[in-house]
Amino acid sequence: MSQYWSSLVHTLTPYVPGEQPKVNNLIKLNTNENPYPPSDKVLAAIHQAADDKLKLYPDPNSDVLKQRIADYHGLTANQVFVGNGSDEVLAHAFQALLKHDKPLLFPDITYSFYPVYCGLYGIEYQTIPLNDEFEIDITDYNQDCGAIIFPNPNAPTGRLLGLDKIEALLQMHPQQVLLIDEAYIDFGGQSAISLVNRYPNLLVTQTLSKSRSLAGLRVGFAIGHPDLIEGLERVKNSFNSYPLDRLAIYGSVASFDDETAFQTACQAVINTREVLVTKLAELGFKVIPSAANFVFASHPQHQAETIAEQLREKSIIVRYFNKPRIDQYLRITIGNDMENQALCSALEAIINNK
Amino acid sequence: MSQYWSSLVHTLTPYVPGEQPKVNNLIKLNTNENPYPPSDKVLAAIHQAADDKLKLYPDPNSDVLKQRIADYHGLTANQVFVGNGSDEVLAHAFQALLKHDKPLLFPDITYSFYPVYCGLYGIEYQTIPLNDEFEIDITDYNQDCGAIIFPNPNAPTGRLLGLDKIEALLQMHPQQVLLIDEAYIDFGGQSAISLVNRYPNLLVTQTLSKSRSLAGLRVGFAIGHPDLIEGLERVKNSFNSYPLDRLAIYGSVASFDDETAFQTACQAVINTREVLVTKLAELGFKVIPSAANFVFASHPQHQAETIAEQLREKSIIVRYFNKPRIDQYLRITIGNDMENQALCSALEAIINNK
Repeated sequence: MSQYWSSLVHTLTPYVPGEQPKVNNLIKLNTNENPYPPSDKVLAAIHQAADDKLKLYPDPNSDVLKQRIADYHGLTANQVFVGNGSDEVLAHAFQALLKHDKPLLFPDITYSFYPVYCGLYGIEYQTIPLNDEFEIDITDYNQDCGAIIFPNPNAPTGRLLGLDKIEALLQMHPQQVLLIDEAYIDFGGQSAISLVNRYPNLLVTQTLSKSRSLAGLRVGFAIGHPDLIEGLERVKNSFNSYPLDRLAIYGSVASFDDETAFQTACQAVINTREVLVTKLAELGFKVIPSAANFVFASHPQHQAETIAEQLREKSIIVRYFNKPRIDQYLRITIGNDMENQALCSALEAIINNK
Repeated sequence: MSQYWSSLVHTLTPYVPGEQPKVNNLIKLNTNENPYPPSDKVLAAIHQAADDKLKLYPDPNSDVLKQRIADYHGLTANQVFVGNGSDEVLAHAFQALLKHDKPLLFPDITYSFYPVYCGLYGIEYQTIPLNDEFEIDITDYNQDCGAIIFPNPNAPTGRLLGLDKIEALLQMHPQQVLLIDEAYIDFGGQSAISLVNRYPNLLVTQTLSKSRSLAGLRVGFAIGHPDLIEGLERVKNSFNSYPLDRLAIYGSVASFDDETAFQTACQAVINTREVLVTKLAELGFKVIPSAANFVFASHPQHQAETIAEQLREKSIIVRYFNKPRIDQYLRITIGNDMENQALCSALEAIINNK
């Protein structure tokens, strides 16, 4: 509390990110990072860009990256917006495209940054409960609203909504923006990017943090109709001209140049996820079907919070949310094979009280 | 224009940064970059950090960098805020600390991003005219207000305000935040950071873009009372958890570890500035006394815009602002000796119609 704060600051409830522990030797399955390193081509591009030209401002429009993303998806550069992680892209989208006279709709169980953005920008919102299986039922969204946002697959559930349902929602609300937050889409879903040329009200966000193993580089992007992109650019250029540094721009471009590394890492995560899901089922967990690089699971005989604490004692960190409806669930990031084996052994010991 | 934009977006007039030309062989004196490369230690630190750990999120609080900056200035880490360039730091400060019921005050001639931020956050403001010599007269600020901001040295004038005047302003308005934007302070001014322990209403922002030759890395910071820093953190953590990537964090830390490179580059810029000022005076220019890495100059017989165009034809870019009171001035960044020599020769040819 301070007399010097604007009145807004007193009302904020900031987002709390997952722990980034400063000690080593932990198996870190709490923030949905990719267990595999970024492509060698990305590292090489960063090394090459880390030169005397750092004295100059980067291109404020990151044109080379926008063009590379556009080419990758068969689109034009004016359909692409880039930012400092998809969190920054989302922040601008909330301010530029999701604030209207009628409430913004999103699921009751979803990315917990959404209500924080609403608080920051004074956006009225209404949460729509997922059904008992933690599914989004699009008929629940058939109501007056200003805009709609949800992740697909949803977080922290991992559940995927089919493209047919997304298309039905776009048709249900042609006057409203539908923002599909695809942070996890590369681990088993079909991207709604294929729909942007047909629906001017669709904005899709993605990140390089998860499937491209670049959480440390802070790059995300949005794809949609040029009018939506222009709205984002207007806000971005009223906030910070140069959100992407030189290294982030060139490293990201290189990531789209190494399709093999990208696909290999995604497939490895998917394979490990299936191993983990099978093991969790054997141990009696209920596991929500996941199309993401994490699973969301609960155990009928064990408190989720207790399991998380017991895993922590075994140097394994997973994410626990002390929130209504999900306080018996753990969100577990998919690690590499060794990490997954350690997790499975630890869970077996905990569940069987060994 | 789009039906999907929030009403705010229609009202925005985004900031237009100086041109970042994509062709080589231009002498670029238009965006106040440092002509000297960053320290080798910075590049080495970036190369070392560009490794497999990029798959992990960076420390959301950039603690190692905050501590390094605190140590450098003899302060504690809770007096330091860091962001994606000082533009992002300023944006958060406008929202967190400069929005109040009474108007924000800043000079009529100053960094042109300030009114843009006010537009973005709905902040009422009032501009206070500089005097005829483009000086800030602090008695003009002796009026009811919500907060005060200006750069010191001011931009685009380069004029410095003494610390005694800043202290008088702090005492004049103990209930209001005074934000001193010190983007250029290392080129000849005394930082107000020395006052933060005595004035809880003082926030000082600095950047690594200019004096530390790191415009391409996007790092800025703010220093002030822990309560002011907490206000900034609350907004930052409601906007984007991880604004600094791994490479920016470690590269910046290394910059504070190489005092010699920093001081050498600053002194070289100052020396070249004095050479340029002397030459400009010889050519009949009126030059505003500069404590920055640029000069602001006008010529009684030549239109500033025409000179800028003629310089461009000679592959030299300087900044021209088509704005009231300053439309006869050019803002010229200090280059290295070779660039400065080329500039001086070109100006001589233009002024003497050779």
